[in-house]
Amino acid sequence: MNKETLTVIKIGGNIIDNSEKLHSFLLDFSSLSGKKILVHGGGKAATDMSISMDVVPKMLEGRRITDIETLRIVTMVYAGLINKNMVAQLQAKKCNAIGLTGADGNLIKGVKRPVKMVKLADGTERSVDYGFVGDLDNNSVNPENLEKLLKAGFVPVFCAITHDGDTQLLNTNADTVAAALAVAMSSLYRTSLVYCFEKKGVMLDVDDEDSLIASINNIEFNNLTKEGVISEGMIPKLQ
Amino acid sequence: MNKETLTVIKIGGNIIDNSEKLHSFLLDFSSLSGKKILVHGGGKAATDMSISMDVVPKMLEGRRITDIETLRIVTMVYAGLINKNMVAQLQAKKCNAIGLTGADGNLIKGVKRPVKMVKLADGTERSVDYGFVGDLDNNSVNPENLEKLLKAGFVPVFCAITHDGDTQLLNTNADTVAAALAVAMSSLYRTSLVYCFEKKGVMLDVDDEDSLIASINNIEFNNLTKEGVISEGMIPKLQ
Repeated sequence: MNKETLTVIKIGGNIIDNSEKLHSFLLDFSSLSGKKILVHGGGKAATDMSISMDVVPKMLEGRRITDIETLRIVTMVYAGLINKNMVAQLQAKKCNAIGLTGADGNLIKGVKRPVKMVKLADGTERSVDYGFVGDLDNNSVNPENLEKLLKAGFVPVFCAITHDGDTQLLNTNADTVAAALAVAMSSLYRTSLVYCFEKKGVMLDVDDEDSLIASINNIEFNNLTKEGVISEGMIPKLQ
Repeated sequence: MNKETLTVIKIGGNIIDNSEKLHSFLLDFSSLSGKKILVHGGGKAATDMSISMDVVPKMLEGRRITDIETLRIVTMVYAGLINKNMVAQLQAKKCNAIGLTGADGNLIKGVKRPVKMVKLADGTERSVDYGFVGDLDNNSVNPENLEKLLKAGFVPVFCAITHDGDTQLLNTNADTVAAALAVAMSSLYRTSLVYCFEKKGVMLDVDDEDSLIASINNIEFNNLTKEGVISEGMIPKLQ
C-alpha cells in the first residue's frame, strides 16, 4: 500500500522577517498537495521585543540563555504574534492552518536541558544553565494526536515552543522540532523534511555550498543520523 | 436520542490574574465530565505589557481602542503568554487542551467593527473608530471544524482573538466569543454556557445582586436573547 505523503517544512528568520518573502512562501505552501506541517523559528521580532522591554538577552558562546523573562518573550512572540498572524495569512489563502506549540494536544514533550559543562573560547570550562530550553528525543512527539489533526484536514503550524508535561513551557530549537516531527510521522506517511534557508538549501557541510541538497526525506535523514552527519547538536549547526 | 453535553466556560481577569484561583479553577475544569470548551479573557497582563513597552492604551468612554500596537500586544499576551501557559497547566492535569484563536482552523470569523457615532458623557456625538475589534454574528463560528476537534478528544481553549478571513486578526470580547461558541454548538450538543465572575454569578440586572443566576443553558440564553435581556452589547455589560 502506498503511504500518503507528508511534507514538513521549516522556515526561519530570513523568510519570517521579510513580509514579501513570507507572503510568497505561504502562497507556495498553501498550494502544496498532500499532508503538510509548517514549523517556524523566531526571526528578529523576539530581539526587537526584548529591546523594547529593556530585557537584555543573555548569550553564551553565541547561544541564547532562556531565562524566565526570555521565555515569556519568546512565548508571546513565537506562539502569539508570529504564529497567529501566519495562521491568519494561511487561512486567507484557503489553507486550513491551526497554530500550535508542543503543549497543545500534548504534541511535543521536551526535557529541560540539564546544566552542562561547556568549554569556553579561552579554553576554560564552566557549568552552563541554558534555562528553559527543551531538548527532544525519539519519544517527544505524540504521533496519535498529530495524526488526528492531519486526518481532520487541519494543517499544523508549529512554533518552536514545547512543554515538559508538568506545566513548564520550554524554548526549543525549530530545526530540531521539524526533524522530530518528520521522524515521528514517518511510520504513517511518506515523509519529507525541507529546511528553507538563506543559503541555497540544506548542506551536508555548512562551509561547502557544493554539498547542498534541496531536501532530505526520512530515509536519508535516518541514514545521515546513523552516520552521525546529523545529530541533535548538528541540526542547528547545519543552518 | 440524548445529545451529549457540552459546557462552555468563560473566565476573566479575576481568575487569570490570581495563580492560586487559576490553578484551582483549572483543576475543577479538568475533572469536568462531558465535552468542554474554555474561553479566557485577558487580565492585567496586557496592560502590564503596554506599560513596559511604553504603549499608552487608548480608551474612550471606558472602552479600549484597539490600534495596531494594542492588537500586537493582545495577540502576544492573550494568544501567546496566557493561552499557552494555561494549556501547559491543563496538560499537566491530564486535560488534552489545545490553545486556539478564531483564526486557527477558521473557527471564528469576526467582522471589523465599523466606525460608529457615539454619544459622549457630555452629550456631544463623535465618530469613533474602535480599531481592530471584531464583532460576531450568528455565522461567525465554524461548528464543523470545532466538532472535529471535540470529536478527536481535544479540549479547545480559546483566547478572544478572531480573524476576518482576509489575513487580519481582530480583538474580540471574550464574553461574546463564549456566547457565540455556545449558540453555534447547541444544535450538536446539549450546551451550557457558564460565566465565572468576580461577582456571584451572571446577573440579569447587573446592579441587582439578587438577580444572579448560577449558569445559563442554551435554551435560557436564546430566550433571554429573544427577550432582549441579552444582546450583543449586553453580554459585556452583564459582567
